Amino acid sequence: MIIDGMGDRPLKELGYKTPLEAAKTPNMDKMAKMGINGIMDPIKPGIRAGSDTSHISILGYDPYQVYTGRGPFEAAGVGVDVMPGDIAFRCNFSTADANGTITDRRAGRIRNGTEEIAKTINSMDIDENVEIIFKESTGHRAVLVLRGNGLSDNVSDADPKHEGKPPKEVLPLDNTEEAKKTADVLNRFIEESYNMLKDHPVNLKRIEKGKNPANIIIPRGAGAVPHVQPFGEKYGLKAACIAETGLIKGIGKIAGMDLVDIDGATGGVDTNIENIKKGIMETASKDYEFMLINIDGADEAGHDGEMDDKVKFIEKVDDVVGEMMQIDDLYFILTADHSTPISVMDHTGDPVPIVIKGPEVRVDDVEEFNERAATKGGLCRIRGRNLMDILMDLMNKSTKFGA
Amino acid sequence: MIIDGMGDRPLKELGYKTPLEAAKTPNMDKMAKMGINGIMDPIKPGIRAGSDTSHISILGYDPYQVYTGRGPFEAAGVGVDVMPGDIAFRCNFSTADANGTITDRRAGRIRNGTEEIAKTINSMDIDENVEIIFKESTGHRAVLVLRGNGLSDNVSDADPKHEGKPPKEVLPLDNTEEAKKTADVLNRFIEESYNMLKDHPVNLKRIEKGKNPANIIIPRGAGAVPHVQPFGEKYGLKAACIAETGLIKGIGKIAGMDLVDIDGATGGVDTNIENIKKGIMETASKDYEFMLINIDGADEAGHDGEMDDKVKFIEKVDDVVGEMMQIDDLYFILTADHSTPISVMDHTGDPVPIVIKGPEVRVDDVEEFNERAATKGGLCRIRGRNLMDILMDLMNKSTKFGA
Repeated sequence: MIIDGMGDRPLKELGYKTPLEAAKTPNMDKMAKMGINGIMDPIKPGIRAGSDTSHISILGYDPYQVYTGRGPFEAAGVGVDVMPGDIAFRCNFSTADANGTITDRRAGRIRNGTEEIAKTINSMDIDENVEIIFKESTGHRAVLVLRGNGLSDNVSDADPKHEGKPPKEVLPLDNTEEAKKTADVLNRFIEESYNMLKDHPVNLKRIEKGKNPANIIIPRGAGAVPHVQPFGEKYGLKAACIAETGLIKGIGKIAGMDLVDIDGATGGVDTNIENIKKGIMETASKDYEFMLINIDGADEAGHDGEMDDKVKFIEKVDDVVGEMMQIDDLYFILTADHSTPISVMDHTGDPVPIVIKGPEVRVDDVEEFNERAATKGGLCRIRGRNLMDILMDLMNKSTKFGA
Repeated sequence: MIIDGMGDRPLKELGYKTPLEAAKTPNMDKMAKMGINGIMDPIKPGIRAGSDTSHISILGYDPYQVYTGRGPFEAAGVGVDVMPGDIAFRCNFSTADANGTITDRRAGRIRNGTEEIAKTINSMDIDENVEIIFKESTGHRAVLVLRGNGLSDNVSDADPKHEGKPPKEVLPLDNTEEAKKTADVLNRFIEESYNMLKDHPVNLKRIEKGKNPANIIIPRGAGAVPHVQPFGEKYGLKAACIAETGLIKGIGKIAGMDLVDIDGATGGVDTNIENIKKGIMETASKDYEFMLINIDGADEAGHDGEMDDKVKFIEKVDDVVGEMMQIDDLYFILTADHSTPISVMDHTGDPVPIVIKGPEVRVDDVEEFNERAATKGGLCRIRGRNLMDILMDLMNKSTKFGA
């Protein structure tokens, strides 16, 4: 169970406590008392992990080998059946004027009609050897996947970053034919998207209502879908992924886990925590041997610098932890994927607390679950990459190396 | 000093103490008070180390590079002068009937006469370019070494694992000529062993007495003898190895250490601990600069699930520790090569406690030597591969990396 961005730094406003130290978390503290505690560097000490690279590492893969960018995981997370070798992009629905200048990068933060627009884009035909797979995500976000031989992810972004400029020309970032071809396909994709969308019925209606039309698609963040040994094959565990965001769902998907959908999961502090709890307990009652659970609100509060929200959200999560402690015959690991300190409003490299509760762990004398109490625990300081090895050993599913 | 398999998990029967926590170990505790403590992952957190891979790692070698299987170390340990490139196998003296079916994999747990049988096998001539070196070990165990150009360790085992079956045909595990040739030599070796042994005087006597004859040799666990930089050359330390089992002796031997024989060392809880103590003190009085000491009984008790035996044996070892603490001018490192929990009856990946006593170590406030007290020590959590570097530094024999 990974509480996204839960780690933090001492805050003057909290009497130099962290939000986790300040929050009332009787269940997490009970778990600390019953388990073995420590701190964990998701990747390496001081390295600022993304949620994606951290989860990859915690699941036992090497993010320096597997991670090619956010695109492939976002694409998988919104339901595209990506295949190794596909080139995936994150996209914005944007607004362009007749001169090709981007006047709104988020197309008036469009919320409806993107599915129909995506359907149109999916019919685009640029190169007979390149399949175009396009899917809307939440709001103005979408993903593009290029499938075919002779493509590369080593191309530049089209996103101009600021309004008032045209999309940037996509450039090959090396001299290979693959990069040149991919850049060419993308430039034509962007141009063609405007042609196909400028008079699209969804956009005509938006214009009528005085809203900015979603009349151009701007891709960025190219990434080749990596070859990832399925989690179930790597560890022999039937696994489910319960996550709120497309990014983490995508990691579960690419690792071959079953995705569990949660109604009302927003990835924010306003998420439906009751439904998440129900989803976890239902999944636990099925024949899964492993659950990856990610709850995202603490990270959002951290990014927004909302101290009180972060404290309150952690207290909500504590309730879920209490419920999960009722599950029998479970190794329950509680941790975070990185720190998102209120003061920094972004991820930092501070280690995160971790506790493992379950049969035969070497229970230590830590009595609270937080960043500082955990440093006195029996795990001392481990890395994300160690965690699955430790779990597999506890579950007695390891093989011996040697005699 | 490596107490094989000493690490464990909390046991309900011991009031949730580990055997090491439950054992009365005044000398080890004194050492903890005088030294710097910590926990150690012999290889990596959670990885289940063998005794061989762990010792290799603790001596500063990379087991992922050096370890090819148990065969080479067993062969070296029973006294075969193995050379890099040799292909070594563990063997059983077994019993076959006239149809070639294995009726007893351990030849009635033969104890006597194996030296004479080995002499006969050593005269076998299968291929003019392959030298056959065969040596008996304890009981029904033996080792086979094939020496010559064009051989491979990538061949399957002949051991049928169960009685009532013929030996498995040895198969090449890749398409190389080397693997094919080695498989062919082994298949002929097995057949020829039966021809040479079925009427061997030792066996005729056994049959007369109603015992199963040792009339066939079954090899398994092929491993190529690795190129290992001699320990003395790597560290500039004249080293002795005091070990009970062929496996650990073999590691000492392959690392170029002098082996010290101990009368009555069985590798079990019934070993002659007084003789081990004498052997250590005698060796320490010679001009050695490094001693690798392995005492095996706690591991045996762990594998057998014998809690009381493990506790008692650790208490016996504590006496040896007390004696060794009298040695002047010594860096004394006490640890284990892995955990062998009573509840698991096999090796696990739980870290092991470690204490280093000697001049100028940063003495911490740990007051007991055990798995949990050690987690509060000044070494925090280290890996087996770090240990020789730490020792060389303390001994002031390290060179500076940089200026």
